[in-house]
Amino acid sequence: MLKAKPVHKRLNFGYDNLVQYRVDLNCDMGESFGAYTLGMDEEVIRSVTSANIACGFHASDPVVMANTAKLCKIHGVMAGAHPGYPDLLGFGRRSMGLSEREILDYTIYQVGALKGLLDFYDLPLQHVKLHGALYNYLVNEEDLAIAVASAVRKAFGDIIFVTLGTERTARLKDRCRMEGIRVALEAFPDRSYTDGGRLLSRNDKGAVLADHVLIAQRAVRMVKEGGVESVNGKFIRMDIDTLCIHGDSVAAVAAAGLLREYAAREGIEIRPLCAIV
Amino acid sequence: MLKAKPVHKRLNFGYDNLVQYRVDLNCDMGESFGAYTLGMDEEVIRSVTSANIACGFHASDPVVMANTAKLCKIHGVMAGAHPGYPDLLGFGRRSMGLSEREILDYTIYQVGALKGLLDFYDLPLQHVKLHGALYNYLVNEEDLAIAVASAVRKAFGDIIFVTLGTERTARLKDRCRMEGIRVALEAFPDRSYTDGGRLLSRNDKGAVLADHVLIAQRAVRMVKEGGVESVNGKFIRMDIDTLCIHGDSVAAVAAAGLLREYAAREGIEIRPLCAIV
Amino acid sequence: MLKAKPVHKRLNFGYDNLVQYRVDLNCDMGESFGAYTLGMDEEVIRSVTSANIACGFHASDPVVMANTAKLCKIHGVMAGAHPGYPDLLGFGRRSMGLSEREILDYTIYQVGALKGLLDFYDLPLQHVKLHGALYNYLVNEEDLAIAVASAVRKAFGDIIFVTLGTERTARLKDRCRMEGIRVALEAFPDRSYTDGGRLLSRNDKGAVLADHVLIAQRAVRMVKEGGVESVNGKFIRMDIDTLCIHGDSVAAVAAAGLLREYAAREGIEIRPLCAIV
Amino acid sequence: MLKAKPVHKRLNFGYDNLVQYRVDLNCDMGESFGAYTLGMDEEVIRSVTSANIACGFHASDPVVMANTAKLCKIHGVMAGAHPGYPDLLGFGRRSMGLSEREILDYTIYQVGALKGLLDFYDLPLQHVKLHGALYNYLVNEEDLAIAVASAVRKAFGDIIFVTLGTERTARLKDRCRMEGIRVALEAFPDRSYTDGGRLLSRNDKGAVLADHVLIAQRAVRMVKEGGVESVNGKFIRMDIDTLCIHGDSVAAVAAAGLLREYAAREGIEIRPLCAIV
Repeated sequence: MLKAKPVHKRLNFGYDNLVQYRVDLNCDMGESFGAYTLGMDEEVIRSVTSANIACGFHASDPVVMANTAKLCKIHGVMAGAHPGYPDLLGFGRRSMGLSEREILDYTIYQVGALKGLLDFYDLPLQHVKLHGALYNYLVNEEDLAIAVASAVRKAFGDIIFVTLGTERTARLKDRCRMEGIRVALEAFPDRSYTDGGRLLSRNDKGAVLADHVLIAQRAVRMVKEGGVESVNGKFIRMDIDTLCIHGDSVAAVAAAGLLREYAAREGIEIRPLCAIV
Repeated sequence: MLKAKPVHKRLNFGYDNLVQYRVDLNCDMGESFGAYTLGMDEEVIRSVTSANIACGFHASDPVVMANTAKLCKIHGVMAGAHPGYPDLLGFGRRSMGLSEREILDYTIYQVGALKGLLDFYDLPLQHVKLHGALYNYLVNEEDLAIAVASAVRKAFGDIIFVTLGTERTARLKDRCRMEGIRVALEAFPDRSYTDGGRLLSRNDKGAVLADHVLIAQRAVRMVKEGGVESVNGKFIRMDIDTLCIHGDSVAAVAAAGLLREYAAREGIEIRPLCAIV
Repeated sequence: MLKAKPVHKRLNFGYDNLVQYRVDLNCDMGESFGAYTLGMDEEVIRSVTSANIACGFHASDPVVMANTAKLCKIHGVMAGAHPGYPDLLGFGRRSMGLSEREILDYTIYQVGALKGLLDFYDLPLQHVKLHGALYNYLVNEEDLAIAVASAVRKAFGDIIFVTLGTERTARLKDRCRMEGIRVALEAFPDRSYTDGGRLLSRNDKGAVLADHVLIAQRAVRMVKEGGVESVNGKFIRMDIDTLCIHGDSVAAVAAAGLLREYAAREGIEIRPLCAIV
Repeated sequence: MLKAKPVHKRLNFGYDNLVQYRVDLNCDMGESFGAYTLGMDEEVIRSVTSANIACGFHASDPVVMANTAKLCKIHGVMAGAHPGYPDLLGFGRRSMGLSEREILDYTIYQVGALKGLLDFYDLPLQHVKLHGALYNYLVNEEDLAIAVASAVRKAFGDIIFVTLGTERTARLKDRCRMEGIRVALEAFPDRSYTDGGRLLSRNDKGAVLADHVLIAQRAVRMVKEGGVESVNGKFIRMDIDTLCIHGDSVAAVAAAGLLREYAAREGIEIRPLCAIV
């Protein structure tokens, strides 16, 4: 997304001449499992443009995945895969000492399983975003992240790889571009950031914001300023292509609705990832 | 496969004028799981033309599936998906009271997961064959079998659906043909048949043959005579497109090698399913 | 519990001379799993006398089980094991073709796992009640039910075995008594009954009552009349030692509170199973 | 075991006056799962005195556990629990970021499950030995190891806690003694040691010895010398109460038989843990 660079140069008439920023809103969805319901998928899907669908390892099951695919179809939301560690009991939030080989094969398995269900409902696979501890692990393992993105590309073609935007992501983006991999950088308006540009651990106080107005305002600032303020007030410059909305948080879901309103008057266009990167 | 009908009418020169029958040899493969090894995949793959790869629900895991895909590539064996009930503990051999919806979504999930790994290794998905209790259940549920085959077709395109050949399979084949689904009928040379043309339960005495010479001879007769003798000596006429070789049985693996020899001199050509149905 | 037989013969002074009936209230609890929350355990535990704690096969996990044990301790509620089929994905509600051997060993495993956690918190194991499809299966398999109750007795000593009260349960009770097994018979005030005295399937309309006043009134009648009316108005006579309250239903939880009020003025004493059978 | 201290002071007649050392031989057993067989349990149980029975999280299932309990009964081998991480796919050999709470509850759950099955077969629970990555993790986390041992003691009474003997284990043993916990220290005759007295990773070359004569000789030396030589020839002094025999290694199983022979003439008495610590 061309956050820092105003887009009006190529958008010069009608509604579009007000658009200066573009961003995708993504949400982790389809995290229910069997008799267990998690997340307010039916509400949050009204506000987002991209859905990260859990793939059965850390959450979800084939029926939930199929239901989520249908939900995406009904609401015109782009679907992506959200693979995680094989740890349903820990919801994929606990680190696991996997080999590179295991990470690659587990990822392809999960993405393929979702793609089958998307194909059944005639929906394209837009992106892949890793989940939880696997997501966090690869933020610090650039080579492995690229190996995963390359494997996904090899198996599934031109799929967008979503990862955390940080001050150092430019290099990752460059390396991926050379391999023909599209990367989208993500920010979290309802999460606090460390000075190092990483998410404050969920175990730390204040890690998750609870006020939906604050979250929405913070989201607008993130997009317009091209960065985020850390817990200590340090400004961290980062590319932002997509904002993550947590569908299991009442505040986040309300914030997403509010953000839609703010965005219109702030010149921010909300579009799916495939229209941005 | 045109077992009953000699193929020499269209094959009238060279080596081919000796070929009167065609059959595929398939084997359930990739049934290992993590630290657990099952099956003599490396041996049996030298004798078969189609591999049914377990998909992680009743057996296998992503790394095993990837290894099995590579094995297929190396040996030029066609790969198919072998989805089963979500019951690793019971190896998919115990009945489960699933809804049609669950069966469809579980199947697509598993086939999709395998297809992702096959795509990674640039291998086509040739067929789908259900496993164990799910396989047996659908033999008696024609409508559900067609629903599964249709769902697979909708999600993955023109994939061959493998099911048990019985005296009544002609109807299933006709119905599938009308929906554009290719069906392959399977017989088990190392298993005893009831008078009703079903497999004798593994719990019954004599259900599994142990002599590799007998198995190989029986396989030849099955193909040439277009049917099988039941435990009571009743001849059951059935189409046979593919013979199942059990890769976890020393006798079956030896029989497959022997069958290769017999086939050459009996005018039976061993070819993958995609060249038969 | 001596439902039909008034208890005042042995209770002849003070508060007790008003008590004419005794019944236990039980509730399935500890059905959450990892990040997934199910049931209103903290509310419903205030109204019941016995808790059936899921054991990790169809629901729950060790941390949830430990938390539920602590909850029982705080509220003075007696703890029991609630083992089910190894089918987390189906919440133990789908039938599975298990052997007797598997059912026995799976049950002992699960009860033992819970007993370890109860022992850690110094809580006795009062009873065992099977869950879902396993519970329903054994209602129709008297020999197998006795085999399970005997195995539990052999492994864990004098533990009460809870099963569905039906018109035919007298025989089961007699057989168990001869083996020294205490049996408690259960009824479901929020579930409709068939004329045969079985629970109407959850898939049928009207299977679950939604009005908490009706449920509470029905519970009182069940205890005082020693039976239940079927959906067709047929009265089914049955012993009732314990009433099941569904902790995942707002109506059932409210009904349990109301039942507590009604019981006091109707001469029904609510006591844990160990004080009844 | 009083390795360093000769035992002849209190053993002064007949056969016993030759006994100068005592050691237990333990083996991980019951690691099969459903249709998957692992380990040569039926052979190795003839040579060992203590069996560590997997509990269903990283390996085994209730039927396998029950079979292994019966095997212990037949051969007069003492049974212990062998709990591991909830990672069947990784056989409990991959690290997992669990909280202390999770480790405690998972351990009690598994030990309790096994204890139920042992109680059914009227077998005592002799010891608890953690498995794989959990075992290794706690070798370096003394406080957590003691927390686990204390939790086991609180739930199950006076059970021996088996852990890796190292140069620093004396302190752990002292702390446990103060809490009334019996500890047994283990050594691995078929594994190479680092200079720091830890097991060389299975991923490193030469980590596992393959020659059964060498393994048996090394076992004798370990017991008589009260320590082990590292890969670099450094002697590491350590208490040794029990030697681990790997039941999935032909060499180790053969070594165990040989060790029995050597032991007789070397004055080493092989006795179960409960007779040693």
